[in-house]
Amino acid sequence: MNVALLGFGNVGRAVARLVLDRHADRLTLTHIFNRGVARKRVPWVPPEVVWTEDIDEVLAAGVDVVVELVGGVSAACYVRRALDAGASVVTANKQVVAHHGAELVALARARGVELRFEASVAGGVPVLRAIEEGLAADRLVRVAGVVNGTSTHILSRMEDGESLAGALAEAQALGFAEADPHDDLSGRDAAAKLAILSATALNRPVCCADISCRSIDGIEPIDFGYARELGCTIRQVAWADLVDGADDVVAAVRPALVSRHSPLARVTGNQNVVTVVGERGGETAFVGRGAGGDATAVAVVSDLLAIAHASAVSGSPSGFSRPRSRVSADYTAPHYIRFTVDDRPGILAAVAAAFARQAIGINAVLQHPGQPKSRLPFVMTLEPCDERRLDAALAEIGTLDFHVQPPTVLPMFEDARGIA
Amino acid sequence: MNVALLGFGNVGRAVARLVLDRHADRLTLTHIFNRGVARKRVPWVPPEVVWTEDIDEVLAAGVDVVVELVGGVSAACYVRRALDAGASVVTANKQVVAHHGAELVALARARGVELRFEASVAGGVPVLRAIEEGLAADRLVRVAGVVNGTSTHILSRMEDGESLAGALAEAQALGFAEADPHDDLSGRDAAAKLAILSATALNRPVCCADISCRSIDGIEPIDFGYARELGCTIRQVAWADLVDGADDVVAAVRPALVSRHSPLARVTGNQNVVTVVGERGGETAFVGRGAGGDATAVAVVSDLLAIAHASAVSGSPSGFSRPRSRVSADYTAPHYIRFTVDDRPGILAAVAAAFARQAIGINAVLQHPGQPKSRLPFVMTLEPCDERRLDAALAEIGTLDFHVQPPTVLPMFEDARGIA
Repeated sequence: MNVALLGFGNVGRAVARLVLDRHADRLTLTHIFNRGVARKRVPWVPPEVVWTEDIDEVLAAGVDVVVELVGGVSAACYVRRALDAGASVVTANKQVVAHHGAELVALARARGVELRFEASVAGGVPVLRAIEEGLAADRLVRVAGVVNGTSTHILSRMEDGESLAGALAEAQALGFAEADPHDDLSGRDAAAKLAILSATALNRPVCCADISCRSIDGIEPIDFGYARELGCTIRQVAWADLVDGADDVVAAVRPALVSRHSPLARVTGNQNVVTVVGERGGETAFVGRGAGGDATAVAVVSDLLAIAHASAVSGSPSGFSRPRSRVSADYTAPHYIRFTVDDRPGILAAVAAAFARQAIGINAVLQHPGQPKSRLPFVMTLEPCDERRLDAALAEIGTLDFHVQPPTVLPMFEDARGIA
Repeated sequence: MNVALLGFGNVGRAVARLVLDRHADRLTLTHIFNRGVARKRVPWVPPEVVWTEDIDEVLAAGVDVVVELVGGVSAACYVRRALDAGASVVTANKQVVAHHGAELVALARARGVELRFEASVAGGVPVLRAIEEGLAADRLVRVAGVVNGTSTHILSRMEDGESLAGALAEAQALGFAEADPHDDLSGRDAAAKLAILSATALNRPVCCADISCRSIDGIEPIDFGYARELGCTIRQVAWADLVDGADDVVAAVRPALVSRHSPLARVTGNQNVVTVVGERGGETAFVGRGAGGDATAVAVVSDLLAIAHASAVSGSPSGFSRPRSRVSADYTAPHYIRFTVDDRPGILAAVAAAFARQAIGINAVLQHPGQPKSRLPFVMTLEPCDERRLDAALAEIGTLDFHVQPPTVLPMFEDARGIA
């Protein structure tokens, strides 16, 4: 399937990399379009790819799919022309979809091609597809999200005591925030994403200019202290609710207090979260990277693969069609071990020596005062080691005669965020 | 599209309800199969539906899709026979997919029909579809989940100080846990789901009997105290990691310490969470109801709609194809209001009176000692009210002359879990 790329910024480069590195068997990059394209050239793109600043050249070439990463609402004209020319389109452009989604979806249908825009909301989190297909049978009555990374960054830093101005300057220095952060702070950026979510989740397209927004710029650090007292924190929340018995939608973007137990409260940095509430399925939450070239490129290229798949004759891909893999439990992890012992001098030394003989480092020892001597619990946490070495050490320790019951051994699971 | 239902227990009834109530335009229920079917009859099923305990009658009828909700690994024979007879199959049966997925997927392909099993992992959370399609472009290197509701219920209750035996008895009384909870506690139930996740997310099918499990039955309430000191809690975690440069997988099910900041730590009750880590997209988490007839039915019927959609000629459904909805911000929510005032007697009375005139209840007043009198902050939280009444009260309050700066007004967002 031939693919033309419009826009070769951060996301465009990540898309080209991902297509060339991992999906060259199914996707062929044929054109890269950018204004002033000469300064954009990179050596790792194959020589067959045409670099151009002439959109007509791209459209005349009869590519199968145009990927629109130009950004801004005016890029709608590229999308329109590509669909008109009979190409499918993948776009990461929230403004184009929020403002012109209805017209462009209709045009794609009329031309018998596809328009996909997973990356336009919540970057790398596949929330539109999960909602539209995975929850298709339910009637969703609410969609809510924390979908503006700049606001989340600023509000999380204010939570730590930073001022709004300081947090904004920091976000700009780190490249998270635009030089003009108005759309982020005011909620207009989130409103565009909410318009797309309202159409997808609630089946209610809305005009995104009609969504009421309030800026986060009135929030002060002291508000986080009060919020904490109330069991909450503050996030920029965008949400839309179905109105019972009407086609109307209640929707707003507000800095809001959210319970610390809510998935909305837990996002930090460039994470996005979208939650939906279904009549039958209850609340479902999707959390992940809302920005960044690589995460956004995953969403864009997954859309490309879906279009390639739909035009192929074969059935759905499935991990079950490979031969079975061998599976082992040879993982390496830090461990938590609780001993219960009949206390006497020398126990800690004996245990520590057994771990040392297996070259397993001890991270912490937790022993609380006031426990019965004859049934004394204490906990050790160990540096990462594999189960084999751990089992060898525990076998040796098991032969010692101070145990009141066998030790409790738990791995400390390290996820992408690390332990504690 | 004609649909036969095998198994009319809790999930089967919820599937029938959902099909009949909301999707009768696209799905026609033709058969309900169950052993001893006479005792299963309910009056709300239309008279045209055939109730039977003869599987041959179902298969001979040439239905388009068979929904297998019988449960247990032996139901694989029904799935095999249905596929062989040229019907697509939707199943919620983790044992059938974990043990026979490879064979059944191959059979479905050979017969040119579909086999879908979204409900077999994490109930109503559309995690398989999101991974297989939405993250198709990435290379996932880890999948992890808390996917056994009984274990989560027991461990959350132990966190509150309950004993394991007490928490288990409670779960059984509430109907969360089986009379024989061995598969739940031992990790075997989670291992079956992990086998499906390994195939789908890592493209590595494994034999689920090869997955090492350790029971949660060695955990004591005291372990939660130590875990808390370490910034963690304890959950039954099932995870699988790709081994670099090999077809092997490292996988295990363990009670494990997980950071309180991890999405894995945050599930309670019948919630499930699945996280994946991609080379490019980083960590993505999917959270929602992992059990319950209605949530599972959403997954089953969404699979049915996907099959109906694939066999239809029309393009993809899209919320953008409806006329635009009117959007308003007429929401009702509790509110947080911070005033900053030049303090004098009577301010609280004046503010309270203005709210009372709009019939807005006051929930709490937070005022901390030691603040400057001339620039005194205090916070009120209000009972749920709409913005119109709130704005009217605030307009009246705004005319009073004690304000040092305009009040900060934030809605307190209530999600499915409520505030605090």
